[in-house]
Amino acid sequence: MINHTITYKKKIMIDATTSIAGPKESTGPLGHYFDKNLNDDLLGQKSYEILESKLHASAVLLLLNKTNLKPSEIDLCIGGDLNNELYATNFAMRELNIPFLGVYAACASYGLSIIIGANFIESNHVQRVICSTSSHFSTAERQFRFPLELGTPRAPQSQWTTTGAGAMLLNTLKGNIRIESATIGKVVDFGVKDVNDMGAAMAPAAFSTLSAHLSALNRNPSYYDLILTGDLGKRGADLLKLLAKKNNLKIDGKIYSDCGVLIFNTTNDSMGQGGSGTACATLVFNGYIYKKLLDKSYRRVLLITTGALLSKTSSLQNQTIPAISHAIAFERI
Amino acid sequence: MINHTITYKKKIMIDATTSIAGPKESTGPLGHYFDKNLNDDLLGQKSYEILESKLHASAVLLLLNKTNLKPSEIDLCIGGDLNNELYATNFAMRELNIPFLGVYAACASYGLSIIIGANFIESNHVQRVICSTSSHFSTAERQFRFPLELGTPRAPQSQWTTTGAGAMLLNTLKGNIRIESATIGKVVDFGVKDVNDMGAAMAPAAFSTLSAHLSALNRNPSYYDLILTGDLGKRGADLLKLLAKKNNLKIDGKIYSDCGVLIFNTTNDSMGQGGSGTACATLVFNGYIYKKLLDKSYRRVLLITTGALLSKTSSLQNQTIPAISHAIAFERI
Repeated sequence: MINHTITYKKKIMIDATTSIAGPKESTGPLGHYFDKNLNDDLLGQKSYEILESKLHASAVLLLLNKTNLKPSEIDLCIGGDLNNELYATNFAMRELNIPFLGVYAACASYGLSIIIGANFIESNHVQRVICSTSSHFSTAERQFRFPLELGTPRAPQSQWTTTGAGAMLLNTLKGNIRIESATIGKVVDFGVKDVNDMGAAMAPAAFSTLSAHLSALNRNPSYYDLILTGDLGKRGADLLKLLAKKNNLKIDGKIYSDCGVLIFNTTNDSMGQGGSGTACATLVFNGYIYKKLLDKSYRRVLLITTGALLSKTSSLQNQTIPAISHAIAFERI
Repeated sequence: MINHTITYKKKIMIDATTSIAGPKESTGPLGHYFDKNLNDDLLGQKSYEILESKLHASAVLLLLNKTNLKPSEIDLCIGGDLNNELYATNFAMRELNIPFLGVYAACASYGLSIIIGANFIESNHVQRVICSTSSHFSTAERQFRFPLELGTPRAPQSQWTTTGAGAMLLNTLKGNIRIESATIGKVVDFGVKDVNDMGAAMAPAAFSTLSAHLSALNRNPSYYDLILTGDLGKRGADLLKLLAKKNNLKIDGKIYSDCGVLIFNTTNDSMGQGGSGTACATLVFNGYIYKKLLDKSYRRVLLITTGALLSKTSSLQNQTIPAISHAIAFERI
């Protein structure tokens, strides 16, 4: 590992991905790319958490269905979500009977899962790994900010937590997109305290990982057809561009985008700065970018998942918001 | 991976461990085995969470000090705690500037960290990994059960969350104890709903992982000098023995013990069934068992960390308690 970056020796490939999108995500600009579109965000369940757990399990079961594999043919599941104690993921895993590793990096959990999954394949100990995540607007909003019933006005710098779930099957046998390298993030804290301003809290972490990645591999940003951050939103993406510019890294609109900006119509004021949530990067990558890699619109994509590591307790204790960012380079074979 | 069990090909060794124990743990039967004994559980900090975060960072810094290594010589940190969104671990990692992977398996997070850490070394991509965890009675009690200020009477089946932190350095260069194999757990749910009865919720997960481990490697329990569960407590340990007996596995008092039983004087009623918490297995292994392996009192130890995957939200929603268990076989070289 040079500069916290791993270049994989084995050909670790994506066999398939799944994406199940909530109602707002389904009617957004990428709606028609997702495998399943929900028209309701509770679907008759008794709580949003239970619904999110069902969605999470469904994303994995759909992946097994797509790939015609049985749970016993999967060596390992790795995943997480935003709920305290990974409520959605842990409860989903009860239904699968597959060895499971739970991870938490807030909205960077998808990147974290993929890096650990790729590493288990690289070590020759497992053949097939499923990485999965989920998030839900209504479980996250009340957990991190206010109960929805309060009707608290949304701050203009806020983002909208994505509702959805997705899963990816990594293996060495099948696929046209490989995981070429990955950069593991450090916890970065620039002193942001505003729980509505996740973009500002996460942008420095994204920059830290991006610059470590490029310097480790001696690459320019233009090496990639697309550099895609997880969920910085419009404002956070602007801050990342500013940080990059100050450090003489050129990431302009042609090669840089953000999943939070792509998933919603951000000219619609109610969506604030765009999407956030663990499912944001998962849905945009699995539903949209993965297909653009398959059809060769892109050959090399760097996905930089971004996570704000606050809790309601840390916010109420007036603490700043640490953040972390894990990056994965995908390559069309 | 056979039956979710990995046998490591590389010689992955423990270079050193650290253990920082809270006041009750320090005056317990193993008190004199720990590196540091605290006589106060707040130490002038503004909150128990902040204190836990400081302890967590101290455990890692003490490890760097013991091994005479700089943070830049560590490739990777992996860790977690019981706090929502890993408050203690994430905030501790701000101080270290080392690439970090956050994990969550409740009180099984130490085992989970070690398995992922060993795998990164096995894949040849990293040389030195630090695994760390922490827990604190006062952060856990209010998060999972009731505010301490309520003075709620403790149920007889309850356990006492361990206060403390610990870290382990894995590497391929130095050490007398190797990680020989590991078994990754599945999420198991036997329908227990009592949030005070963690032992009953976790015993089936411990049994699932123990039996998978033994059958994968074609071993009898007597292969090990010690089989040690993480924090089942007295009652949970009895349930595990019962499950084992019903399945024709003999784990009697000679070769089987539980960290929760060892860490406190369980004839003292106020400690209920014994210790629990992520730090329970960490302190007992790092402080006590590690030294017993070093002095060859034990040659082979199977540590089965155990985690109850409830959240306050899942309990309030009347859900059952899923559990998971990750096991690691240590061998004196």
